[in-house]
Amino acid sequence: MKPKIIAFDADDTLWHNEPYFDEAQNKFCELFSGYASKQELLRLILNHQITNLPLYGFGIKAFTLSMIESALEITNHSISGQNIEKVLQIGKDLLQKPVELLPEIIEVLEQLKGSHKLIVATKGDLKDQHRKLHESGIGAYFHHIEVMSDKTELDYEKMLLRLDCKPTDFLMIGNSLKSDVLPVLNIGGHAIHIPYHTTWEYEQIDFEIEHDNFRAFEKITEIVPLFS
Amino acid sequence: MKPKIIAFDADDTLWHNEPYFDEAQNKFCELFSGYASKQELLRLILNHQITNLPLYGFGIKAFTLSMIESALEITNHSISGQNIEKVLQIGKDLLQKPVELLPEIIEVLEQLKGSHKLIVATKGDLKDQHRKLHESGIGAYFHHIEVMSDKTELDYEKMLLRLDCKPTDFLMIGNSLKSDVLPVLNIGGHAIHIPYHTTWEYEQIDFEIEHDNFRAFEKITEIVPLFS
Repeated sequence: MKPKIIAFDADDTLWHNEPYFDEAQNKFCELFSGYASKQELLRLILNHQITNLPLYGFGIKAFTLSMIESALEITNHSISGQNIEKVLQIGKDLLQKPVELLPEIIEVLEQLKGSHKLIVATKGDLKDQHRKLHESGIGAYFHHIEVMSDKTELDYEKMLLRLDCKPTDFLMIGNSLKSDVLPVLNIGGHAIHIPYHTTWEYEQIDFEIEHDNFRAFEKITEIVPLFS
Repeated sequence: MKPKIIAFDADDTLWHNEPYFDEAQNKFCELFSGYASKQELLRLILNHQITNLPLYGFGIKAFTLSMIESALEITNHSISGQNIEKVLQIGKDLLQKPVELLPEIIEVLEQLKGSHKLIVATKGDLKDQHRKLHESGIGAYFHHIEVMSDKTELDYEKMLLRLDCKPTDFLMIGNSLKSDVLPVLNIGGHAIHIPYHTTWEYEQIDFEIEHDNFRAFEKITEIVPLFS
Protein backbone atom coordinates (compact mmCIF):
# COMPACT_ATOMS: atom_id res chain seq x y z
CA MET A 1 0.00 0.00 0.00
CA LYS A 2 1.52 3.32 -1.09
CA PRO A 3 -0.86 6.11 -0.06
CA LYS A 4 0.27 9.69 -0.65
CA ILE A 5 -1.60 10.88 2.43
CA ILE A 6 -2.50 8.87 5.52
CA ALA A 7 -5.22 10.53 7.59
CA PHE A 8 -5.95 9.56 11.18
CA ASP A 9 -9.25 10.22 12.84
CA ALA A 10 -8.62 11.82 16.24
CA ASP A 11 -11.26 10.99 18.90
CA ASP A 12 -11.04 7.32 19.93
CA THR A 13 -8.42 6.66 17.25
CA LEU A 14 -5.48 8.75 18.49
CA TRP A 15 -6.79 9.57 21.95
CA HIS A 16 -9.62 8.56 24.31
CA ASN A 17 -12.83 10.54 23.90
CA GLU A 18 -16.09 8.60 24.17
CA PRO A 19 -15.55 7.67 27.85
CA TYR A 20 -15.45 11.40 28.66
CA PHE A 21 -18.77 11.90 26.87
CA ASP A 22 -20.20 8.90 28.72
CA GLU A 23 -19.05 10.43 32.00
CA ALA A 24 -20.63 13.77 31.04
CA GLN A 25 -23.91 12.09 30.14
CA ASN A 26 -23.86 10.16 33.41
CA LYS A 27 -23.58 13.44 35.30
CA PHE A 28 -26.53 14.80 33.32
CA CYS A 29 -28.58 11.68 34.06
CA GLU A 30 -27.85 11.93 37.79
CA LEU A 31 -28.92 15.57 37.76
CA PHE A 32 -32.30 14.72 36.23
CA SER A 33 -32.79 11.20 37.63
CA GLY A 34 -36.03 12.34 39.30
CA TYR A 35 -37.61 12.94 35.90
CA ALA A 36 -36.84 9.87 33.80
CA SER A 37 -34.75 6.73 33.54
CA LYS A 38 -31.16 6.93 32.41
CA GLN A 39 -32.10 5.22 29.17
CA GLU A 40 -34.84 7.77 28.47
CA LEU A 41 -32.54 10.69 29.28
CA LEU A 42 -29.79 9.38 26.99
CA ARG A 43 -32.36 8.91 24.21
CA LEU A 44 -33.59 12.47 24.74
CA ILE A 45 -30.09 13.97 24.45
CA LEU A 46 -29.35 11.91 21.34
CA ASN A 47 -32.62 13.03 19.72
CA HIS A 48 -31.81 16.68 20.37
CA GLN A 49 -28.27 16.20 19.08
CA ILE A 50 -29.50 14.65 15.84
CA THR A 51 -32.22 17.26 15.37
CA ASN A 52 -29.68 20.02 15.94
CA LEU A 53 -26.94 18.56 13.70
CA PRO A 54 -27.86 20.64 10.61
CA LEU A 55 -27.61 23.83 12.68
CA TYR A 56 -24.97 23.05 15.29
CA GLY A 57 -22.80 20.38 13.71
CA PHE A 58 -20.61 18.18 15.95
CA GLY A 59 -18.58 18.95 19.04
CA ILE A 60 -18.89 19.80 22.69
CA LYS A 61 -20.58 23.19 22.30
CA ALA A 62 -23.34 21.57 20.23
CA PHE A 63 -23.57 18.77 22.83
CA THR A 64 -23.89 21.32 25.64
CA LEU A 65 -26.65 23.24 23.86
CA SER A 66 -28.50 19.97 23.19
CA MET A 67 -28.18 18.98 26.87
CA ILE A 68 -29.73 22.31 27.87
CA GLU A 69 -32.64 21.75 25.47
CA SER A 70 -33.08 18.23 26.83
CA ALA A 71 -33.12 19.56 30.39
CA LEU A 72 -35.78 22.13 29.47
CA GLU A 73 -37.91 19.44 27.88
CA ILE A 74 -37.62 16.83 30.62
CA THR A 75 -38.41 19.35 33.38
CA ASN A 76 -41.22 20.90 31.37
CA HIS A 77 -39.28 24.18 31.61
CA SER A 78 -39.34 24.13 35.41
CA ILE A 79 -35.55 23.70 35.61
CA SER A 80 -33.70 25.97 38.05
CA GLY A 81 -30.97 28.39 37.05
CA GLN A 82 -28.60 26.42 39.28
CA ASN A 83 -29.18 23.27 37.26
CA ILE A 84 -28.70 25.12 33.97
CA GLU A 85 -25.38 26.28 35.35
CA LYS A 86 -24.49 22.68 36.24
CA VAL A 87 -25.23 21.57 32.69
CA LEU A 88 -23.05 24.40 31.32
CA GLN A 89 -20.32 23.21 33.66
CA ILE A 90 -20.57 19.62 32.38
CA GLY A 91 -19.74 21.02 28.94
CA LYS A 92 -16.89 23.17 30.22
CA ASP A 93 -15.41 20.20 32.09
CA LEU A 94 -15.46 18.19 28.85
CA LEU A 95 -13.54 20.98 27.11
CA GLN A 96 -10.80 20.69 29.72
CA LYS A 97 -10.29 16.93 29.91
CA PRO A 98 -6.72 15.72 29.70
CA VAL A 99 -5.67 14.23 26.38
CA GLU A 100 -4.74 10.57 26.84
CA LEU A 101 -3.20 8.88 23.85
CA LEU A 102 -4.27 5.36 22.95
CA PRO A 103 -1.60 2.67 23.39
CA GLU A 104 1.31 2.56 20.94
CA ILE A 105 0.16 5.58 18.90
CA ILE A 106 3.59 7.22 19.11
CA GLU A 107 5.34 4.00 18.05
CA VAL A 108 3.14 3.76 14.95
CA LEU A 109 3.56 7.44 14.02
CA GLU A 110 7.31 7.10 14.51
CA GLN A 111 7.36 4.24 11.98
CA LEU A 112 5.31 6.09 9.38
CA LYS A 113 6.54 9.67 9.68
CA GLY A 114 9.49 9.51 7.32
CA SER A 115 7.79 7.78 4.43
CA HIS A 116 4.28 9.26 4.42
CA LYS A 117 2.48 12.56 4.70
CA LEU A 118 0.35 12.21 7.83
CA ILE A 119 -2.66 14.36 8.67
CA VAL A 120 -5.41 14.36 11.28
CA ALA A 121 -8.97 14.39 9.91
CA THR A 122 -11.60 14.88 12.57
CA LYS A 123 -15.02 16.31 13.34
CA GLY A 124 -15.87 18.39 16.40
CA ASP A 125 -15.17 21.89 17.65
CA LEU A 126 -12.35 23.65 15.85
CA LYS A 127 -10.77 25.14 18.95
CA ASP A 128 -11.19 21.99 21.01
CA GLN A 129 -9.59 19.70 18.42
CA HIS A 130 -6.67 22.11 17.97
CA ARG A 131 -6.23 22.19 21.74
CA LYS A 132 -6.25 18.41 21.96
CA LEU A 133 -3.72 17.97 19.17
CA HIS A 134 -1.48 20.53 20.85
CA GLU A 135 -1.80 18.93 24.30
CA SER A 136 -1.37 15.42 22.92
CA GLY A 137 2.26 16.17 22.16
CA ILE A 138 2.01 14.40 18.79
CA GLY A 139 1.29 17.49 16.68
CA ALA A 140 4.75 17.41 15.14
CA TYR A 141 4.07 14.07 13.43
CA PHE A 142 1.31 15.62 11.34
CA HIS A 143 1.45 17.97 8.40
CA HIS A 144 -1.74 19.53 9.66
CA ILE A 145 -5.16 18.94 11.23
CA GLU A 146 -8.36 19.04 9.19
CA VAL A 147 -11.37 19.75 11.36
CA MET A 148 -14.29 18.80 9.14
CA SER A 149 -17.85 20.03 9.67
CA ASP A 150 -18.98 16.50 8.77
CA LYS A 151 -17.44 13.37 7.26
CA THR A 152 -19.67 12.77 4.26
CA GLU A 153 -18.39 11.77 0.83
CA LEU A 154 -18.66 15.40 -0.25
CA ASP A 155 -16.61 16.57 2.75
CA TYR A 156 -13.86 14.08 1.92
CA GLU A 157 -13.95 15.05 -1.77
CA LYS A 158 -13.55 18.72 -0.93
CA MET A 159 -10.69 17.98 1.43
CA LEU A 160 -8.84 15.85 -1.13
CA LEU A 161 -9.29 18.52 -3.80
CA ARG A 162 -7.76 21.04 -1.44
CA LEU A 163 -4.91 18.66 -0.59
CA ASP A 164 -4.38 17.96 -4.30
CA CYS A 165 -4.65 14.22 -3.57
CA LYS A 166 -6.50 11.62 -5.65
CA PRO A 167 -8.86 9.36 -3.66
CA THR A 168 -6.82 6.31 -4.75
CA ASP A 169 -3.77 7.88 -3.05
CA PHE A 170 -5.65 8.50 0.21
CA LEU A 171 -5.92 6.26 3.25
CA MET A 172 -8.19 7.02 6.20
CA ILE A 173 -7.71 5.27 9.54
CA GLY A 174 -10.38 5.50 12.20
CA ASN A 175 -12.74 3.87 14.67
CA SER A 176 -16.02 4.80 12.96
CA LEU A 177 -17.22 2.64 10.07
CA LYS A 178 -19.87 5.27 9.34
CA SER A 179 -17.59 8.32 9.26
CA ASP A 180 -14.06 7.08 8.65
CA VAL A 181 -14.61 4.08 6.38
CA LEU A 182 -17.80 4.06 4.29
CA PRO A 183 -17.62 7.55 2.73
CA VAL A 184 -13.91 7.11 1.94
CA LEU A 185 -14.48 3.76 0.21
CA ASN A 186 -17.43 5.24 -1.68
CA ILE A 187 -15.28 7.95 -3.25
CA GLY A 188 -12.55 5.48 -4.22
CA GLY A 189 -10.18 5.86 -1.29
CA HIS A 190 -8.68 3.32 1.10
CA ALA A 191 -9.80 2.84 4.70
CA ILE A 192 -8.69 0.95 7.78
CA HIS A 193 -10.96 0.34 10.74
CA ILE A 194 -9.52 0.07 14.25
CA PRO A 195 -12.46 -0.30 16.64
CA TYR A 196 -12.63 1.46 19.98
CA HIS A 197 -14.28 -0.38 22.84
CA THR A 198 -17.29 1.93 22.81
CA THR A 199 -18.95 3.81 19.96
CA TRP A 200 -21.37 6.74 20.02
CA GLU A 201 -24.77 5.39 19.01
CA TYR A 202 -24.99 7.87 16.13
CA GLU A 203 -21.85 6.36 14.56
CA GLN A 204 -23.05 2.76 14.66
CA ILE A 205 -23.97 0.81 11.53
CA ASP A 206 -25.50 -2.66 11.47
CA PHE A 207 -23.95 -4.31 8.44
CA GLU A 208 -20.59 -5.81 7.46
CA ILE A 209 -18.22 -4.09 5.05
CA GLU A 210 -16.39 -6.04 2.37
CA HIS A 211 -14.32 -4.05 -0.08
CA ASP A 212 -10.95 -4.42 -1.82
CA ASN A 213 -9.78 -1.10 -0.33
CA PHE A 214 -10.87 -1.95 3.20
CA ARG A 215 -8.93 -3.59 6.04
CA ALA A 216 -9.88 -4.06 9.68
CA PHE A 217 -7.50 -4.61 12.59
CA GLU A 218 -7.79 -4.93 16.31
CA LYS A 219 -4.73 -2.84 17.17
CA ILE A 220 -3.16 0.19 15.54
CA THR A 221 0.29 -1.46 15.50
CA GLU A 222 -1.01 -4.00 13.00
CA ILE A 223 -1.07 -1.36 10.25
CA VAL A 224 2.70 -0.84 10.23
CA PRO A 225 3.66 -3.94 8.18
CA LEU A 226 1.32 -2.75 5.39
CA PHE A 227 3.70 0.08 4.56
CA SER A 228 7.08 -1.63 4.82
CA MET B 1 1.13 43.66 -6.26
CA LYS B 2 1.49 40.00 -7.24
CA PRO B 3 0.25 37.86 -4.33
CA LYS B 4 0.14 34.12 -4.87
CA ILE B 5 -2.90 33.81 -2.61
CA ILE B 6 -5.52 36.46 -1.87
CA ALA B 7 -7.57 35.67 1.23
CA PHE B 8 -10.86 37.37 2.02
CA ASP B 9 -12.28 37.58 5.49
CA ALA B 10 -15.95 36.52 5.38
CA ASP B 11 -18.15 38.22 8.00
CA ASP B 12 -18.58 41.93 7.20
CA THR B 13 -16.10 41.67 4.33
CA LEU B 14 -17.94 39.37 1.90
CA TRP B 15 -21.37 39.42 3.57
CA HIS B 16 -23.24 41.28 6.31
CA ASN B 17 -22.84 39.81 9.79
CA GLU B 18 -22.47 42.26 12.65
CA PRO B 19 -25.98 43.74 12.22
CA TYR B 20 -27.40 40.25 12.83
CA PHE B 21 -25.41 40.00 16.06
CA ASP B 22 -26.61 43.48 17.06
CA GLU B 23 -30.19 42.39 16.41
CA ALA B 24 -29.64 39.24 18.49
CA GLN B 25 -28.16 41.25 21.36
CA ASN B 26 -31.06 43.70 21.17
CA LYS B 27 -33.48 40.81 21.61
CA PHE B 28 -31.48 39.62 24.62
CA CYS B 29 -31.51 43.13 26.11
CA GLU B 30 -35.28 43.42 25.68
CA LEU B 31 -35.75 40.06 27.39
CA PHE B 32 -33.78 41.18 30.46
CA SER B 33 -34.52 44.91 30.40
CA GLY B 34 -36.03 44.64 33.89
CA TYR B 35 -32.65 43.73 35.35
CA ALA B 36 -30.14 46.18 33.89
CA SER B 37 -29.58 48.84 31.26
CA LYS B 38 -28.84 47.86 27.69
CA GLN B 39 -25.29 49.09 28.11
CA GLU B 40 -24.77 46.93 31.20
CA LEU B 41 -26.25 43.88 29.51
CA LEU B 42 -24.05 44.29 26.43
CA ARG B 43 -21.01 44.67 28.68
CA LEU B 44 -21.99 41.52 30.56
CA ILE B 45 -22.29 39.43 27.38
CA LEU B 46 -18.96 40.75 26.09
CA ASN B 47 -17.26 39.91 29.38
CA HIS B 48 -18.56 36.35 29.28
CA GLN B 49 -17.56 36.01 25.63
CA ILE B 50 -14.01 37.14 26.34
CA THR B 51 -13.71 34.96 29.46
CA ASN B 52 -14.97 31.97 27.48
CA LEU B 53 -12.80 32.53 24.39
CA PRO B 54 -10.02 30.12 25.47
CA LEU B 55 -12.59 27.35 25.92
CA TYR B 56 -15.28 28.15 23.37
CA GLY B 57 -13.50 30.09 20.65
CA PHE B 58 -15.53 32.26 18.26
CA GLY B 59 -18.90 31.74 16.61
CA ILE B 60 -22.60 31.61 17.29
CA LYS B 61 -22.62 28.54 19.55
CA ALA B 62 -20.05 30.19 21.82
CA PHE B 63 -22.11 33.40 21.72
CA THR B 64 -25.27 31.49 22.68
CA LEU B 65 -23.57 29.76 25.61
CA SER B 66 -22.20 33.11 26.79
CA MET B 67 -25.67 34.68 26.55
CA ILE B 68 -27.06 31.89 28.74
CA GLU B 69 -24.33 32.48 31.33
CA SER B 70 -25.04 36.21 31.23
CA ALA B 71 -28.75 35.57 31.74
CA LEU B 72 -28.01 33.35 34.75
CA GLU B 73 -25.80 36.02 36.26
CA ILE B 74 -28.08 38.99 35.69
CA THR B 75 -31.15 37.18 37.09
CA ASN B 76 -29.15 35.78 40.00
CA HIS B 77 -30.10 32.32 38.69
CA SER B 78 -33.82 33.06 39.00
CA ILE B 79 -34.32 32.89 35.22
CA SER B 80 -37.25 30.82 33.97
CA GLY B 81 -36.94 27.84 31.66
CA GLN B 82 -39.03 29.76 29.13
CA ASN B 83 -36.47 32.55 29.00
CA ILE B 84 -33.60 30.09 28.65
CA GLU B 85 -35.47 28.66 25.68
CA LYS B 86 -35.83 32.17 24.23
CA VAL B 87 -32.09 32.73 24.52
CA LEU B 88 -31.42 29.39 22.78
CA GLN B 89 -33.79 30.50 20.04
CA ILE B 90 -31.92 33.81 19.57
CA GLY B 91 -28.86 31.69 18.78
CA LYS B 92 -30.74 29.37 16.45
CA ASP B 93 -32.22 32.34 14.59
CA LEU B 94 -28.71 33.71 14.07
CA LEU B 95 -27.65 30.38 12.56
CA GLN B 96 -30.42 30.68 9.99
CA LYS B 97 -30.05 34.27 8.84
CA PRO B 98 -29.97 34.83 5.10
CA VAL B 99 -26.57 35.51 3.60
CA GLU B 100 -26.51 38.97 2.06
CA LEU B 101 -23.44 39.83 0.05
CA LEU B 102 -21.89 43.26 0.42
CA PRO B 103 -22.13 45.53 -2.66
CA GLU B 104 -20.00 44.70 -5.70
CA ILE B 105 -18.37 41.61 -4.18
CA ILE B 106 -19.18 39.49 -7.22
CA GLU B 107 -17.78 42.13 -9.60
CA VAL B 108 -14.49 42.16 -7.68
CA LEU B 109 -14.21 38.37 -7.51
CA GLU B 110 -15.00 38.17 -11.22
CA GLN B 111 -12.06 40.49 -11.95
CA LEU B 112 -9.61 38.56 -9.78
CA LYS B 113 -10.61 34.96 -10.32
CA GLY B 114 -8.56 34.18 -13.41
CA SER B 115 -5.26 35.62 -12.24
CA HIS B 116 -5.16 34.76 -8.54
CA LYS B 117 -5.82 31.89 -6.16
CA LEU B 118 -8.60 33.17 -3.92
CA ILE B 119 -9.50 31.72 -0.53
CA VAL B 120 -11.81 32.64 2.36
CA ALA B 121 -10.11 32.94 5.76
CA THR B 122 -12.55 33.39 8.61
CA LYS B 123 -13.21 32.71 12.28
CA GLY B 124 -16.47 31.36 13.68
CA ASP B 125 -18.34 28.07 13.70
CA LEU B 126 -17.15 25.59 11.12
CA LYS B 127 -20.58 24.43 10.05
CA ASP B 128 -22.04 27.94 10.04
CA GLN B 129 -19.29 29.42 7.88
CA HIS B 130 -19.52 26.52 5.41
CA ARG B 131 -23.29 27.06 5.25
CA LYS B 132 -22.87 30.75 4.61
CA LEU B 133 -20.30 30.27 1.85
CA HIS B 134 -22.60 27.72 0.24
CA GLU B 135 -25.68 29.93 0.49
CA SER B 136 -23.79 33.01 -0.65
CA GLY B 137 -23.52 31.56 -4.14
CA ILE B 138 -19.89 32.72 -4.43
CA GLY B 139 -18.26 29.47 -3.30
CA ALA B 140 -17.06 28.69 -6.82
CA TYR B 141 -14.78 31.76 -6.86
CA PHE B 142 -12.71 30.33 -4.03
CA HIS B 143 -10.22 27.49 -3.94
CA HIS B 144 -11.42 26.74 -0.44
CA ILE B 145 -12.53 28.15 2.91
CA GLU B 146 -10.23 28.22 5.94
CA VAL B 147 -12.20 28.41 9.16
CA MET B 148 -9.57 29.42 11.70
CA SER B 149 -9.95 28.89 15.46
CA ASP B 150 -8.38 32.34 15.89
CA LYS B 151 -6.53 34.87 13.72
CA THR B 152 -3.27 35.27 15.59
CA GLU B 153 0.14 35.42 13.95
CA LEU B 154 0.62 31.74 14.78
CA ASP B 155 -2.70 30.81 13.18
CA TYR B 156 -1.75 32.62 9.98
CA GLU B 157 1.72 31.05 9.99
CA LYS B 158 0.26 27.56 10.31
CA MET B 159 -2.21 28.24 7.53
CA LEU B 160 0.47 29.54 5.16
CA LEU B 161 2.69 26.54 5.90
CA ARG B 162 -0.19 24.26 5.00
CA LEU B 163 -0.89 26.25 1.84
CA ASP B 164 2.80 26.19 0.96
CA CYS B 165 2.74 30.00 0.59
CA LYS B 166 5.38 32.45 1.81
CA PRO B 167 4.02 35.40 3.84
CA THR B 168 5.38 37.81 1.22
CA ASP B 169 3.16 36.09 -1.37
CA PHE B 170 0.06 36.38 0.80
CA LEU B 171 -2.53 39.15 0.87
CA MET B 172 -5.35 39.30 3.43
CA ILE B 173 -8.38 41.53 2.87
CA GLY B 174 -10.77 42.21 5.72
CA ASN B 175 -12.69 44.62 7.91
CA SER B 176 -10.85 43.96 11.17
CA LEU B 177 -7.55 45.73 11.79
CA LYS B 178 -7.00 43.49 14.79
CA SER B 179 -7.65 40.13 13.10
CA ASP B 180 -7.18 40.65 9.36
CA VAL B 181 -4.41 43.25 9.22
CA LEU B 182 -2.04 43.42 12.22
CA PRO B 183 -1.10 39.72 12.54
CA VAL B 184 -0.61 39.39 8.78
CA LEU B 185 1.69 42.45 8.63
CA ASN B 186 3.59 41.15 11.65
CA ILE B 187 4.48 37.89 9.93
CA GLY B 188 5.58 39.65 6.74
CA GLY B 189 2.40 39.43 4.67
CA HIS B 190 0.31 42.06 2.91
CA ALA B 191 -3.02 43.36 4.17
CA ILE B 192 -5.84 45.57 2.94
CA HIS B 193 -8.43 47.06 5.26
CA ILE B 194 -11.97 47.70 4.03
CA PRO B 195 -13.96 48.97 7.02
CA TYR B 196 -17.51 47.88 7.72
CA HIS B 197 -19.87 50.46 9.19
CA THR B 198 -19.95 48.72 12.55
CA THR B 199 -17.29 46.64 14.34
CA TRP B 200 -17.59 44.21 17.24
CA GLU B 201 -16.05 45.91 20.26
CA TYR B 202 -13.61 43.02 20.74
CA GLU B 203 -12.13 43.68 17.29
CA GLN B 204 -11.51 47.39 17.83
CA ILE B 205 -8.04 48.88 18.18
CA ASP B 206 -7.25 52.48 19.07
CA PHE B 207 -4.15 53.29 17.05
CA GLU B 208 -3.28 54.00 13.42
CA ILE B 209 -1.42 51.52 11.24
CA GLU B 210 1.36 52.63 8.90
CA HIS B 211 3.22 49.92 7.06
CA ASP B 212 4.66 49.43 3.58
CA ASN B 213 2.55 46.28 3.11
CA PHE B 214 -0.66 47.92 4.27
CA ARG B 215 -3.37 49.68 2.26
CA ALA B 216 -6.76 50.96 3.35
CA PHE B 217 -9.75 51.61 1.11
CA GLU B 218 -13.33 52.64 1.58
CA LYS B 219 -14.82 50.27 -0.98
CA ILE B 220 -13.87 46.78 -2.10
CA THR B 221 -13.89 47.80 -5.78
CA GLU B 222 -10.88 50.04 -5.13
CA ILE B 223 -8.62 47.01 -4.78
CA VAL B 224 -9.04 45.87 -8.39
CA PRO B 225 -6.61 48.36 -10.02
CA LEU B 226 -3.86 47.08 -7.70
CA PHE B 227 -3.73 43.80 -9.59
CA SER B 228 -4.06 44.95 -13.20
